[in-house]
Amino acid sequence: MRKFGVIGVGHVGVTVAYTLVTKGIADQLVLIDKNEDKAVAEQLDLEDCQARLDTTTQITIQDYSELADADVLFVTSGNIHALDDNSGNRWAEFEYTREIVKDIAPKISNSGFNGILVDTMNPCDAITQYLQESSGLSRNQCIATGTFLDTARMQRVVAEQFDTNSKNVNGYVLGEHGESQFVAWSTVTINNHPIEQYARERGMELDLDNLEAEIRHGGWAIHSGKGYTSFGIATCAVKLAQSMLSDSQLECPVSSYNEKYDTYLGQPAVVGSDGVEYTNDLKLTDEEEDKLQASADTIKEKFATL
Amino acid sequence: MRKFGVIGVGHVGVTVAYTLVTKGIADQLVLIDKNEDKAVAEQLDLEDCQARLDTTTQITIQDYSELADADVLFVTSGNIHALDDNSGNRWAEFEYTREIVKDIAPKISNSGFNGILVDTMNPCDAITQYLQESSGLSRNQCIATGTFLDTARMQRVVAEQFDTNSKNVNGYVLGEHGESQFVAWSTVTINNHPIEQYARERGMELDLDNLEAEIRHGGWAIHSGKGYTSFGIATCAVKLAQSMLSDSQLECPVSSYNEKYDTYLGQPAVVGSDGVEYTNDLKLTDEEEDKLQASADTIKEKFATL
Amino acid sequence: MRKFGVIGVGHVGVTVAYTLVTKGIADQLVLIDKNEDKAVAEQLDLEDCQARLDTTTQITIQDYSELADADVLFVTSGNIHALDDNSGNRWAEFEYTREIVKDIAPKISNSGFNGILVDTMNPCDAITQYLQESSGLSRNQCIATGTFLDTARMQRVVAEQFDTNSKNVNGYVLGEHGESQFVAWSTVTINNHPIEQYARERGMELDLDNLEAEIRHGGWAIHSGKGYTSFGIATCAVKLAQSMLSDSQLECPVSSYNEKYDTYLGQPAVVGSDGVEYTNDLKLTDEEEDKLQASADTIKEKFATL
Amino acid sequence: MRKFGVIGVGHVGVTVAYTLVTKGIADQLVLIDKNEDKAVAEQLDLEDCQARLDTTTQITIQDYSELADADVLFVTSGNIHALDDNSGNRWAEFEYTREIVKDIAPKISNSGFNGILVDTMNPCDAITQYLQESSGLSRNQCIATGTFLDTARMQRVVAEQFDTNSKNVNGYVLGEHGESQFVAWSTVTINNHPIEQYARERGMELDLDNLEAEIRHGGWAIHSGKGYTSFGIATCAVKLAQSMLSDSQLECPVSSYNEKYDTYLGQPAVVGSDGVEYTNDLKLTDEEEDKLQASADTIKEKFATL
Repeated sequence: MRKFGVIGVGHVGVTVAYTLVTKGIADQLVLIDKNEDKAVAEQLDLEDCQARLDTTTQITIQDYSELADADVLFVTSGNIHALDDNSGNRWAEFEYTREIVKDIAPKISNSGFNGILVDTMNPCDAITQYLQESSGLSRNQCIATGTFLDTARMQRVVAEQFDTNSKNVNGYVLGEHGESQFVAWSTVTINNHPIEQYARERGMELDLDNLEAEIRHGGWAIHSGKGYTSFGIATCAVKLAQSMLSDSQLECPVSSYNEKYDTYLGQPAVVGSDGVEYTNDLKLTDEEEDKLQASADTIKEKFATL
Repeated sequence: MRKFGVIGVGHVGVTVAYTLVTKGIADQLVLIDKNEDKAVAEQLDLEDCQARLDTTTQITIQDYSELADADVLFVTSGNIHALDDNSGNRWAEFEYTREIVKDIAPKISNSGFNGILVDTMNPCDAITQYLQESSGLSRNQCIATGTFLDTARMQRVVAEQFDTNSKNVNGYVLGEHGESQFVAWSTVTINNHPIEQYARERGMELDLDNLEAEIRHGGWAIHSGKGYTSFGIATCAVKLAQSMLSDSQLECPVSSYNEKYDTYLGQPAVVGSDGVEYTNDLKLTDEEEDKLQASADTIKEKFATL
Repeated sequence: MRKFGVIGVGHVGVTVAYTLVTKGIADQLVLIDKNEDKAVAEQLDLEDCQARLDTTTQITIQDYSELADADVLFVTSGNIHALDDNSGNRWAEFEYTREIVKDIAPKISNSGFNGILVDTMNPCDAITQYLQESSGLSRNQCIATGTFLDTARMQRVVAEQFDTNSKNVNGYVLGEHGESQFVAWSTVTINNHPIEQYARERGMELDLDNLEAEIRHGGWAIHSGKGYTSFGIATCAVKLAQSMLSDSQLECPVSSYNEKYDTYLGQPAVVGSDGVEYTNDLKLTDEEEDKLQASADTIKEKFATL
Repeated sequence: MRKFGVIGVGHVGVTVAYTLVTKGIADQLVLIDKNEDKAVAEQLDLEDCQARLDTTTQITIQDYSELADADVLFVTSGNIHALDDNSGNRWAEFEYTREIVKDIAPKISNSGFNGILVDTMNPCDAITQYLQESSGLSRNQCIATGTFLDTARMQRVVAEQFDTNSKNVNGYVLGEHGESQFVAWSTVTINNHPIEQYARERGMELDLDNLEAEIRHGGWAIHSGKGYTSFGIATCAVKLAQSMLSDSQLECPVSSYNEKYDTYLGQPAVVGSDGVEYTNDLKLTDEEEDKLQASADTIKEKFATL
């Protein structure tokens, strides 16, 4: 059986839950929120779906002990209103999130949970490290969506620029899921052509700085229009979870522990039933290496303020 | 190709959109909202999913002319905040919704849309009739989710009572998607046994009034906990749309025009590519017939105040 | 994780496997066949799908020890060519199947398998009883698709007669998955109307004997045209397995042990993580009770010849 | 509505049909075979699934006029027994297939079909060209799965070699879907690293000739074990069809017309609602260019013998 937990049934958490239920991915689902009325309401709303679906998911709420045998635990708490000034700074959520994490980390630890933890809370790189250290889970068991979402946005923005499908675009956004992230343009291909070559062959001007700004702020455009982001991030989180359940060894850029920089950051990792199976070294340009170092430094600095 | 439109990208509309995109149901999707920033944000958030999905959906926004060749149009506008007093009265939305409908009906009409319209706006029975009359679409082309959702809730509540799966529960909630609705208990079966017989065989007490109250107020419990309802209603709406696209002739209780009562109300209808293909007479008890009449009267009264 | 085994990769077994892989239902899949080359080929053909799918399934072959932690084991061996005389008699497979079962039952037992066994081999009622007794698994852990398929055929045939969707048809085919089966017409409804009432209201003649013959021989029509049946039976088997994994408590007619008749036979059973959770008594007519008794006697007679 | 046709309900055709039905992809499906009993049997077997599925597909058989408004037509006829000598030569099917094509091309043409034709018949490059020329359809409307399947096999074989997921492997098999095909190793990456670099970093020996032989003969291993291939090819064909319906602009190696070589051959093409939207030039090595030329020559030579 596939069993999932979701701590924090805000916009991201419930979209993850809805996806797991309506696509028949979850056999069992545990929802936990500090607002019990909200957890009850989400459970009822999800159960109202079930007579109309082909599949069934057993949903329980508010019980940490149910996490003991869960395969994947999504931690999706967070205070989106901390972002309402649209400053574009995910660290604005940190203070708030830190308190949440201090509350839930021991509860996760005490629940006996021993699966894979997928964090979507921001600032996700630092928070995941904090969760890992305080929960007693191993590093490979703790992962954040990180730049998996930013990479999806890079694929979207590049695809729009070249009037193609985002699935035809490969490559990575690396580093912090935040302002210091960067597109590793040397890794980006369109239909298996390096982006610069692809543009040149088509006689197209390519303003990488402009594209990168659009990618970095893709989330803020969504946040300013709908007040939060939910669909893209939930889709990334669910894809990671599915990859773990089937021990898929799928490679994707997610936030995981990097030995060289001694911090969590967005980097290509191979995902399987152990969470992060291993990370892949990339051949980056010197400039990209510098950006990665700088992004790692930013994350560590912030983490130190915890 | 399957082409869908969604007018109103609030909680219900975007959940419908997310479902159509992530389950690969829609080839094309048109989103329209009076708040353009919100429409843009939802489009971006949905497009951020696509690099992580196996399927592709072409999404356009804010263009009524795109509805000309749409198969199904969901009308999901509505002002959920009109309900914030938790009075449990869907008519509270009416005044607000009426203004929306007066705005969008001519736009739908002018767009050349000639598919099936699925309304989820409340009070949905009266609103759908208004939409039908003012859009120039035929009666069979206009449908509301109506008691399809209330029936799902009945299935959930009865299933919980008997510790079984809601899919094992059959039967109908009829009449208004609102306070005057009622469970036609004479139609309700569990594992193909009439509910009263099923309870008797198990020596269980059965308080139908109590169950019915829980069913009728199922939506309010969700509303009070999360501020709106979205998952159940969206799942119902998508199921109807799929049934239409495949001309499935699926029978389900939805709000459609009833000749005898000369009004829209929740009744068993057979759904196909023409929308409502035909409605089915039910063998109701005299008491149930009276309730249906009373519910029809309530709807007509409210409709007259438009 | 969801782990499935398939013993016998003939037409039914591989269709089950293909469905589990392409719909992303299985995380792990074990294929076993006495013809190793065939098992290798099916594994390769299924693995050729995986680069084109969104999901991943780990496939291993020919290793009974892999079944130790499987959730569901499909036993789909059988010699379809034993049926090539089109005699319409599933017992023709019995002698052949018996030898297979004598071979595989101890291997299943020795593997440490302790999940739910779903048999599709014919004559399935007797074979499943034999498998249960010889494998050491409990009665609730051993199930056959039985009349779940015949019921699907009943739904199809009745739906065609009334020009509606088979999903609108409810009711049961009971007894042997073979010649002595019968449609319990007293349980059959169309759009929640008893079939005879539904026909009468529409002024339709209803020849139940004729319909029943078409249902009973539905499989032979398929067999004579394509040499075997695969899609319907595989779809039934997969639906049962999904119902088990999610502990769905779904009620459906399957072959399971009946205390009153002391034999396996097709009867309404509630399916969950323990396999058959419990069976439901039906209110049958006296004539139907007689038919059920006769069908049970037929199965027991044949079983005794083992 | 999505409408699909399948001409030839052999192993490939029915697997395509089963996939379209059970995954809810098709709203309407037309099956045509020269053996009417087989077509009837497949229709019945597919309809037996429908009571167990969440979705509905309308299935008709043997009526070419139903193709007039179909979106995609799969041509999957072929005589697999022409291959029973295991010579590994898909041209062995040619003579037989040519007669089939001469029979069906005018029927397709007369049906008024104007969608996209997806051929899986071998030798598929030449046959598709023949179908295109004799059906009156434009070049972009006619496509064969071609090396899309061989590329999936390359992804599988390389993934096995490196103990990773085939989805992590990118690159192309080009040219004929037959003996003269070749892996364009210069395009092959693993986790976005060129294959040779990836092997070198891991200290692995890499025998590309050996891998290529395994890829080229992947189909024959399957054929010799199960007598035909079905799952991989059907999955490729369905993926192409889905990409067309949603106008996805997905890039993949399929057999399409190449102006430079004046023949159909496997090459990267962008697939959308017009079939082949455009083809992509690849940067190949000189050796690869020579192989592509040689493969094109082989196809043209064989085509000339028609």
